[in-house]
Parts: sequence; C-alpha cells; structure tokens
Amino acid sequence: MSTHGESFDAGALRRLRERGLELSKPSNPAGKYVTHKLHRGTGYLAAQLPSRDGQYVMLGRVGAELDLEAGQRAAELAALSAITRIRSALGTLDRLETLLRVDGIVASAQGFYDQPKVLDGASELFVAALAERGEHARSAVATPWLPGNNSVELVITFAYRE
Amino acid sequence: MSTHGESFDAGALRRLRERGLELSKPSNPAGKYVTHKLHRGTGYLAAQLPSRDGQYVMLGRVGAELDLEAGQRAAELAALSAITRIRSALGTLDRLETLLRVDGIVASAQGFYDQPKVLDGASELFVAALAERGEHARSAVATPWLPGNNSVELVITFAYRE
Amino acid sequence: MSTHGESFDAGALRRLRERGLELSKPSNPAGKYVTHKLHRGTGYLAAQLPSRDGQYVMLGRVGAELDLEAGQRAAELAALSAITRIRSALGTLDRLETLLRVDGIVASAQGFYDQPKVLDGASELFVAALAERGEHARSAVATPWLPGNNSVELVITFAYRE
Repeated sequence: MSTHGESFDAGALRRLRERGLELSKPSNPAGKYVTHKLHRGTGYLAAQLPSRDGQYVMLGRVGAELDLEAGQRAAELAALSAITRIRSALGTLDRLETLLRVDGIVASAQGFYDQPKVLDGASELFVAALAERGEHARSAVATPWLPGNNSVELVITFAYRE
Repeated sequence: MSTHGESFDAGALRRLRERGLELSKPSNPAGKYVTHKLHRGTGYLAAQLPSRDGQYVMLGRVGAELDLEAGQRAAELAALSAITRIRSALGTLDRLETLLRVDGIVASAQGFYDQPKVLDGASELFVAALAERGEHARSAVATPWLPGNNSVELVITFAYRE
Repeated sequence: MSTHGESFDAGALRRLRERGLELSKPSNPAGKYVTHKLHRGTGYLAAQLPSRDGQYVMLGRVGAELDLEAGQRAAELAALSAITRIRSALGTLDRLETLLRVDGIVASAQGFYDQPKVLDGASELFVAALAERGEHARSAVATPWLPGNNSVELVITFAYRE
C-alpha cells in the first residue's frame, strides 16, 4: 500500500489491482479504423466495449439479459479497456492530463430508464483508478441494441501532455 | 432595450428576458461525473436535459406524449440549461468565444422523423441569446427513449477564452 | 495516373474519380445550424447523411429496406459528403491535417448487429481518398430509425492547418 515516490502510472495500476482488476489485452478494432488519434493535446479514443482477454463479454440488454448490477460491471469493463488503450497510446498514464468527455450508450430493454446508474460503473472506475484525472463530463443515451449485441459502449475524449 | 455599453453577458441575459426566459438553477448531475471540463480553450458540457428549477420536465417521446411544438419547447429548455451551465463554468458569458458542436438526441415515437425540427427549438434559442457566438454545427439522432424518460438531450462542446 | 508534383488536394480528387466518385453539391443543413465550425486547428462538421446532388438518398433501415451492401454504399455516400464539406470549409484539402473521430449511427432493423461493417463503407472511402490523413478513431451505434428516414449518419471531427 506504500505510495512513497510512486509515479501516477504505477499508482493507477496499483489502485486497479486493489480492486481486483488488471490491464489486459484490449479487443481489436471491429472495423477499418484506428484505436486512437492524438492531436495537439487532445486524444480521441475509438469506442470501448466490455471485453476480457480481447473477447467481447456481457452481451445483451440491461433490463433484460443483464440486470442493473451486471450492466454496471459491463460499464466498468469498458472503462478498464479505455484505461488500457489510453496507456498504450501514451506509453504511460503519467502523460494523461485528464479525461474530458465520456459519452455512454446503453443497450436497454424497453422501459429501462436508469442508463446513468449503469454508466456510474464506468465513472466510478475512472475516478478510483485515475483520481482527479479521471473526472469527466458525461452523457448517457439508451438504444434498443448495440453492435455485436454489446451492452455498453463508451466514446471517450481525453487530454494529454505532448 | 438600450444596449449602449452593454457587455455581451448582460446582453445575452437581456435577450433571454425579452423572450420570457431566465437562467435558473440547473439540475444536478444524474451520476458520478462533473458538470463540465475546460481544457485549453475548449469546453465540454455534460448532457443537458429539459429542466425547470432543477427538476426534469416535459418527459416522454416526441410524436407520442409530446407533440412537435412541445418537443421544441423541451429542446429550448435544455438549451437554456446549457447557457446556464456555460455561464457558471466561465463566470460570465463574456468569456464564451463560440459554441462549436451540439449533438441532439430526441426520444421519438415510432414513425416520427422530424428530430431536426425539434432541435431547432434549441438552435434558435442559442442564436437568439448568444448571437453569432451561438452558431454551431449540429447532429440529430432519434432514439425510442432517453434516460429518466426525458424527451431531448443535448451534448455540447464550446470554445472559451482562457 | 501520374502523381508527379500533384498536390494532396488534386490527388484526393483523382483517387475519388478512380473510384467513379465526384464531389457533388452537398445537401443543405436540415435545420437552424451551420455546416461546420473551425476553432484553433480543430474542425467540427454537422452530421453528414447519404446524399446525391443535394438530395437525401438510400433511405430506410439496414437489415430491412437496405441490405448490408447497400448500407455500406450509403455510408460511402455520407463520407463523400463529408469530404466535400471539409474541402469547402478549408478551401482545399491541402489544409486538412487529419480526420480525428467519426461517430457513425446506423438505422437498423431489429436483430441487425453489423453496424461496424456498414460504417466500413465510410472508413474505406476516407482512407482511399485521403490516405493517412483519412485515418480516424470511430464509434458505431445502432438506432431503430434516423431523422428523415435516413440510413446512416456520420458525425466528424478533424484537424486542419490554420
């Protein structure tokens, strides 16, 4: 638990481990695009989906195949993928200045209106792992289904040191 | 109606009053995120929903529970919330350089295709209150329902003077 | 086919012609917004829809009124509109530094999950016409229908030289 002289990057990885989470191999792009773009201090991440060991997991709609708690766990996994991708893009999380925006889309059963609670699973992980640098503006949208029958999709913009 | 020596901020508030609108207490974030992020001249606002006195209002789907005119009024209220939030983030609208992008999502009854007309309720208010600084690129999307059964959601990016 | 001394702009137009595509008159904004905003090196494009000669075409949902191949062609047409708009905004594609983000929304029949394959129709055109400058991060979302019964919508952010 010692944090003496610990880099931000090492601290983030430690805080993830303390939650039982590790950065793992992210899934490959699902199409003909790149995983991220970096431009003058602003980073644009391709959409992040819940995955484990490079495989999409926790498929279905929240409120139907997945309950609220499972949806939150799916959002957390998508957030973990995002942290993995950002670290890979920057070499180290030390260069992450802050998250800026997280737009979250939740595949939802008819009559399910708690998309913000689902996305809190992602937002909490960002702040737990990245502290102040994990804070973000957010939008939440419902849709009846997502590509590949995924449950949660995160579209993320961040700031980095060049 | 005199505008002699009036600041941009004061002019915007006056133009809103002339339409019978006032900046009111915006609703709190619906989850574990922040209301906005400011980064090197670009501002990112959390999603704005139609609210009055901090309460979400005008719930339902356009084309079903709300007609087109009500949907436009809902979009206008969401735009008013956005102006309130931007002013609060910057201290004064004098520092607002310009809106950049407004992404609008409209909860829609099946067979309702006029989302752009709904969002014109927001776009008109932005230009009426903020003049040239209110001009923006826009996207319009339909979805069968939104978080909390809200009718209109606006995701806004803007430019400001540091 | 000679590219000797050819500008990037001329090369992009040539590569489009080699695919049988030409920049044509883009459709007008569908509401009270502007076609684009340019701000300190970052450009924000209003949503692009599949159009030909200024008219929206290829209406309907992919997986129902349109098959996958038609959806890809619709995405390609929306991408062509985007290139037209960017060129018009900048005067010449020589000033386009790179695409940054493409957010794609696909009007989809129930049970259709291949939105990324649809959007590859746009992504491939961007890279074919703009080479490395066409590379982008991407998100893909499904929705049951889009404004005006359009099949594909692209929301694009790009970098340009001031």
